[in-house]
Amino acid sequence: MSSKMKVIQSIEEMVALTKSDLWSGTIGFVPTMGALHRGHISLAEYARKECDIVVMSIYLNPTQFGPNEDLDNYPKTLKADLDKAEKAGVDYVFTPTSKMMYPDGFKSWVNVEGITDILCGAKRPNHFRGVTTIVSKLMNIVSPDLMYMGEKDYQQIAVLNTMISDLNFRTVIRPCPIIRESDNLAMSSRNAYLNEDERIRARVLYQSLQKARTLYKQGTADPEILRKSMQELIQLHAGKIDYIEFVDRNTLDKKETADDNTRVIIAVFIGSTRLIDNMDLV
Amino acid sequence: MSSKMKVIQSIEEMVALTKSDLWSGTIGFVPTMGALHRGHISLAEYARKECDIVVMSIYLNPTQFGPNEDLDNYPKTLKADLDKAEKAGVDYVFTPTSKMMYPDGFKSWVNVEGITDILCGAKRPNHFRGVTTIVSKLMNIVSPDLMYMGEKDYQQIAVLNTMISDLNFRTVIRPCPIIRESDNLAMSSRNAYLNEDERIRARVLYQSLQKARTLYKQGTADPEILRKSMQELIQLHAGKIDYIEFVDRNTLDKKETADDNTRVIIAVFIGSTRLIDNMDLV
Repeated sequence: MSSKMKVIQSIEEMVALTKSDLWSGTIGFVPTMGALHRGHISLAEYARKECDIVVMSIYLNPTQFGPNEDLDNYPKTLKADLDKAEKAGVDYVFTPTSKMMYPDGFKSWVNVEGITDILCGAKRPNHFRGVTTIVSKLMNIVSPDLMYMGEKDYQQIAVLNTMISDLNFRTVIRPCPIIRESDNLAMSSRNAYLNEDERIRARVLYQSLQKARTLYKQGTADPEILRKSMQELIQLHAGKIDYIEFVDRNTLDKKETADDNTRVIIAVFIGSTRLIDNMDLV
Repeated sequence: MSSKMKVIQSIEEMVALTKSDLWSGTIGFVPTMGALHRGHISLAEYARKECDIVVMSIYLNPTQFGPNEDLDNYPKTLKADLDKAEKAGVDYVFTPTSKMMYPDGFKSWVNVEGITDILCGAKRPNHFRGVTTIVSKLMNIVSPDLMYMGEKDYQQIAVLNTMISDLNFRTVIRPCPIIRESDNLAMSSRNAYLNEDERIRARVLYQSLQKARTLYKQGTADPEILRKSMQELIQLHAGKIDYIEFVDRNTLDKKETADDNTRVIIAVFIGSTRLIDNMDLV
C-alpha cells in the first residue's frame, strides 16, 4: 500500500473492507489505546516491514480498567495519533466507539484462567478479562495474520498467546522489544502523568531491573536476595512497589531459583502513577 | 462439491484445508456430537441446499457435560454417522479428539452471562460455558459462513447468537425446525436411552406443548394456568418436570403474560432420561 491512510469508524465498514478486493497479502495489526508514543510507532514500523497491509486500532477499552483506575484521565490525542500513524506507514486506522464495541446488553466475555490471576492480574481484577475480550473482538473484526504487541506488557502477550492457542484463533502475535526514553524509562502513555521530579525518580524501574541482572550474572540466583536489592534501590527513590516477581519467561510460573529463562517483572508507583517494566536476567 | 466425502482428523489439516484452493464459495457448517439422527441429517440437507461446501464436525464435547451427566453413556456410532453424513451430501467431516481440542494446560473459556443462567443453564451449571467455548474453537478452525443448528436446543441458539454478536464472530446461525418422530417426539440422541414404556410416555412432552398452545389460542394468557395444565398432563404420564418456562422467543426473558412472541420451553425426566422440547404458542 502507498496511498493515503484511511480512517475507519465503524465495525461494518472494517469488516466490509476485509471482504473486499483491497484485502490481500499478509495483514498486520497493531491494537492500541491511542496516546501513541515511539513504542507504538515501532510496532507499526515492524508491521510495515513484514506485511502487505497494516491496520492500527485506536480504541480506549473501558473494560480493562478497574473502577478506581485512570480511564477518565487516560490521555486522548487522536489528531496527533493519526498523524503519527500515517507517518509510520499505517494503511488503515480503526477507531470504533464504545457504543459500537459494547452495545447495551453486551454479556459475552473471554477469560483465561490462572495466568491472569498473578502479577498485574492479581492487582487489577478483571483487567485481563477486558483485554482478552476486546482482542477477541478486534481479531474477529480485522482478521489479521500478525498482531504486533510490545513486551512492556509482557504478561498481556503471555495471556493472549494462551487464548489464541486454546481457542484456535488464527492470528500470530509478534512480540516486539520495549522501546525506552534516552534515560531508559520504558515508553508508556502513562509517563505523561509524571511531574518533573517523578519523571527523574521513574528511572529507578530500569535501574532496579539492571541491578537484578547484574547480580544474577555475578552469581546470585536467589529471588529473595535479588528482590531485596531491587526493593532497596526503588525505595531510595521513593517508589512504592506494587510487585517484583521472578518468573519463567514462557509460562510466567514463579521461579524458586533464578536461571537463564527467568524474566523479572515489576510494577511500581511513582507518586500516584503505576508504571510497569520487565527484563530477562541474561 | 460432488466427490467422495473426506474425513479430517486433525485441527492442522482442517485449518490447512480452509486456506487451500479447495475452499471457495459459501461454507456451511453442522456441528454435532455424533449419534446422528434425522434431526442432524436435516441440518446437513439444509446446508447442502444453501452452500458450496458442507462441513460437519463429530465431536463429543466433554466440557458441556456436568460431572453426574451422561458423557460416558452418550451413544457413540461413528461408522454409521459417517455413512449418514455422506448420504446427506456432507463434503468434509471433522473428527478431532479431546487431546487436540483440550490439550494439557487448557485454560481459556468463553462465557455469556445472564441468558446462560436460566432454563437449562440453571439446571446444568457450566453447560453453556462448554458450548460457547467449543463453538468458538470450531468457528475459528472451520471459519464457516453459515452454521446450522436445530431449534430443539432453542436456548443454545440464543446463547450462541448473543456470543457471535458480542464478540463479532463472522458466522451466521441458521436455526432449523425441530424434526420429530412419527408420534411427534423430538429427535434426540438421548431418545436411545428410553425403554419401550418410557418411549411411549415421552410423547407427553409434545402433547403438553400442544396443550399450552391450544389453551393460549382459546384465550388463556396466564403462564401459571398454562403451566399447571401442562404439569397435570406430564405427571399423568409419570414425567418428572425439570422446568416449564414461558419466555420471549428472542430474548428468552420470562413472560408475565403469554403473547404471540412467547415460546414455551420444557425439560422433563422420563425415567432417568432428561428430554427437552419447545414450541411457539402461535
